[in-house]
Amino acid sequence: MSDRTSPPADREPPNPHRSEPASDSAWSELERLFPGIVTRDPGELAAFGLDYTRVYAPNASALALPRTTEDVASILAFCNQRRLPVVPSGGRTGLAGGAVAANGELVLSLTRMRRMDPVDTVGNTVRVQAGAVTAAVHEHCEPHGLTWPVDFSSKGSSQVGGNIATNAGGVKVIRYGLTRQWVLGLQVVLADGRVLELGGALEKNNTGADLRQLFIGSEGTLGVITEATLKLSRRPGKLDVFLFAVNDLADVLRLFREVKQTPYLISAYEFFTLSCLQRLMRHRAVRAPFASPSPFYVLLELEGAPSTEALEPWLTSLFERQLVQDGTLAQHSSDAAALWELREGIGESLSATGLPHKNDIALPIAELESFCAEFEQVFSTRYPGLEICLFGHIGDGNLHINVMKPDAMPKEEFLRQAKDRDLDLFALVRAHRGSISAEHGIGLLKRNYLHFTRSKDEIALLHALKQAFDPHGILNPGKVLL
Amino acid sequence: MSDRTSPPADREPPNPHRSEPASDSAWSELERLFPGIVTRDPGELAAFGLDYTRVYAPNASALALPRTTEDVASILAFCNQRRLPVVPSGGRTGLAGGAVAANGELVLSLTRMRRMDPVDTVGNTVRVQAGAVTAAVHEHCEPHGLTWPVDFSSKGSSQVGGNIATNAGGVKVIRYGLTRQWVLGLQVVLADGRVLELGGALEKNNTGADLRQLFIGSEGTLGVITEATLKLSRRPGKLDVFLFAVNDLADVLRLFREVKQTPYLISAYEFFTLSCLQRLMRHRAVRAPFASPSPFYVLLELEGAPSTEALEPWLTSLFERQLVQDGTLAQHSSDAAALWELREGIGESLSATGLPHKNDIALPIAELESFCAEFEQVFSTRYPGLEICLFGHIGDGNLHINVMKPDAMPKEEFLRQAKDRDLDLFALVRAHRGSISAEHGIGLLKRNYLHFTRSKDEIALLHALKQAFDPHGILNPGKVLL
Repeated sequence: MSDRTSPPADREPPNPHRSEPASDSAWSELERLFPGIVTRDPGELAAFGLDYTRVYAPNASALALPRTTEDVASILAFCNQRRLPVVPSGGRTGLAGGAVAANGELVLSLTRMRRMDPVDTVGNTVRVQAGAVTAAVHEHCEPHGLTWPVDFSSKGSSQVGGNIATNAGGVKVIRYGLTRQWVLGLQVVLADGRVLELGGALEKNNTGADLRQLFIGSEGTLGVITEATLKLSRRPGKLDVFLFAVNDLADVLRLFREVKQTPYLISAYEFFTLSCLQRLMRHRAVRAPFASPSPFYVLLELEGAPSTEALEPWLTSLFERQLVQDGTLAQHSSDAAALWELREGIGESLSATGLPHKNDIALPIAELESFCAEFEQVFSTRYPGLEICLFGHIGDGNLHINVMKPDAMPKEEFLRQAKDRDLDLFALVRAHRGSISAEHGIGLLKRNYLHFTRSKDEIALLHALKQAFDPHGILNPGKVLL
Repeated sequence: MSDRTSPPADREPPNPHRSEPASDSAWSELERLFPGIVTRDPGELAAFGLDYTRVYAPNASALALPRTTEDVASILAFCNQRRLPVVPSGGRTGLAGGAVAANGELVLSLTRMRRMDPVDTVGNTVRVQAGAVTAAVHEHCEPHGLTWPVDFSSKGSSQVGGNIATNAGGVKVIRYGLTRQWVLGLQVVLADGRVLELGGALEKNNTGADLRQLFIGSEGTLGVITEATLKLSRRPGKLDVFLFAVNDLADVLRLFREVKQTPYLISAYEFFTLSCLQRLMRHRAVRAPFASPSPFYVLLELEGAPSTEALEPWLTSLFERQLVQDGTLAQHSSDAAALWELREGIGESLSATGLPHKNDIALPIAELESFCAEFEQVFSTRYPGLEICLFGHIGDGNLHINVMKPDAMPKEEFLRQAKDRDLDLFALVRAHRGSISAEHGIGLLKRNYLHFTRSKDEIALLHALKQAFDPHGILNPGKVLL
């Protein structure tokens, strides 16, 4: 009750010299109250204060590594009472700064909470703690012929809780949808330490507004996800992987329409540009897929063909009808893996060979072509000579736009110019009724631009939700909303 | 501004004699302000004041039939200013009283707003107004080889807005999921008349909490859905329909596990009991499917088999392994339709041949068997001699439990007893971590029982959401929440 004798932190005048020691004593008390769970070790704070976003300096005050939901509830109740800011933290593979602690927060990492219950093979569900790593969940389910079809390059580090809190996308969204679709139940701890059990192992539960849906994609601003009951899918049968070379984006989309006419399921329809491939080849020992380079490449994965041979006549017809300039169909799983590496190695290769300024936008599929034409026109006029690496999940309207820093340009100048370019880009996205963040989220990185996709009335409602769930604003303050 | 001169209605003392005439003048003013849109014709009020739920007497004060979103916005702004209660209304096929106007409300029917835009065959989407009838949407998409896979018996009357507001389920949930999964964008009018455009034709849009998800399944208590961009699916190829006779629920589930091992997609796994079939045969001219009656029947629909003949050996093996007592595989589409009629005709037949007290519960699939055993034990002990018609979408854990009124029992006595039985049933549902409403929603009918599925903390959050979205409580008052 001692905090009641002094005014609450959020009403104090903004005097950092006075408030700093007060917070400091609160952090020390937290450390004392949770021995073995809370640490202030500088090395740990530096590591846990950052995610994959490379533009922030970590500045966490403390790190909590709870083992149980009760630990999480006690820590949050304490922080809520003392008005201490908390950054919920998963595998820290985010690209929008959602898990960054740059303002003296407590990092609440779920990484020790990685229990996985036995797979329920009657209902095809599994309950896991939030810290379970995505790839570990896949391995856990595989012996039963099942999978949790949330899949992306960082699956070896990303955790279930973070996937859900960011409604993660990835390479299989065209087949399986976003993470949202594969969550049946959630256990969530509210800012004040109350624990909610939402949904459980139920496919259907129409009993008033579905609170689970609010936590999915809320980026840790409304509650901390501690456990989840995941919906599982049967593992797909044989998958056939193609790589195609095409001339331009119009051809990428023309081919997409053609592919949709096949009787098979499209489990991935990805594309990338030549500049992505060139960076990949500089970073990794991969060979060029075709004899001649091509401006655009498409990776297609199909499910349900009776045999690989059965697809050969269709591939031949694509050449004959000049729908593709070149193409290959993987004959073995090692071929397929090699083709997938061309797509999945891009993100890492861009960062390893230079400094990319990343954007992750979504458009209505019907707008992709006109958007890209305008984008090229605007950028070649206003920002000539820049190398732009374009790739993504074009089958679901998602483009990853990476502008590479020119070698000769200082980093600060590049980042400064990025702000202008972003404004141009986001205005185009808005004009084409798109989203400024398809799957990476808003976090710190995009919060100034939220109004390009969400209206004033929507943002007011988001603030009202925040107020209802976290009245003292302790959960991931400054993320998503200003 | 005249309403500002007197205190707002919600602060007036609860004196029905004084407030009644005041309301009356407000309804007259509404009628005058919206000629040709608002009516107080008693016949219309009686018809539009009810849905499929047969336990309430309609008592609407007025009916609005807007033609545009602007109409809806103006009407709601007026009602919000005057604190007039509004019941949003679609095809009125609900079974929980969510669209009933029994307390002097305005019925705001979207039935004139049934525009359907051209189908977007690149992105596989279509934008429609909320009043578009489900079956009309299906017909609109069919020529393009596409469908909106929300499908249930009342699709000839139910409307898109109502389907979304109730997150409708149906017979294909096991294959396609609930309505929630097939909504990309929503246009929603808030209680105060503000119009939100949420999402649009985007598959991906991770820009803060997803407000669409709150309106989906909110039963008209948070806003009025006026338009939606629907996600479409390719129409399935050939479907194969089986009917099986089995001995008990354990066998229904044993067969389900067997079916999940086939390489094909399960597009429906439904069951019903002999008493359902007998009522159906009394109501419609259908023949018994097998030579001898069976306690349980299963309807299975499979997608993806190369031919019907290819399934014959599997069917034979089911007999050989005694997984089924009898079984048939439809050879023609007319056979398949006849088998489907056995399942889809049940709801209507129960109501036509007697008075069913309906419950629509969901359970984790892994709990179905133990739940049903306990249910049978409890009901046969406490309520012996009752005819219970059980059917539903057992592949997704959803049971429709219909207790039939004995001919000799007066209706009032039956309904009074139903309350006790419901309490027993819901306690069992809770003990097995199920839901008291799988797909019908809460509406008026289940609001007293909400706490069996939602915790005190959850209900408090639902109230907070209601307060944030509809501070004067004009939207569907008394529905879902007390």
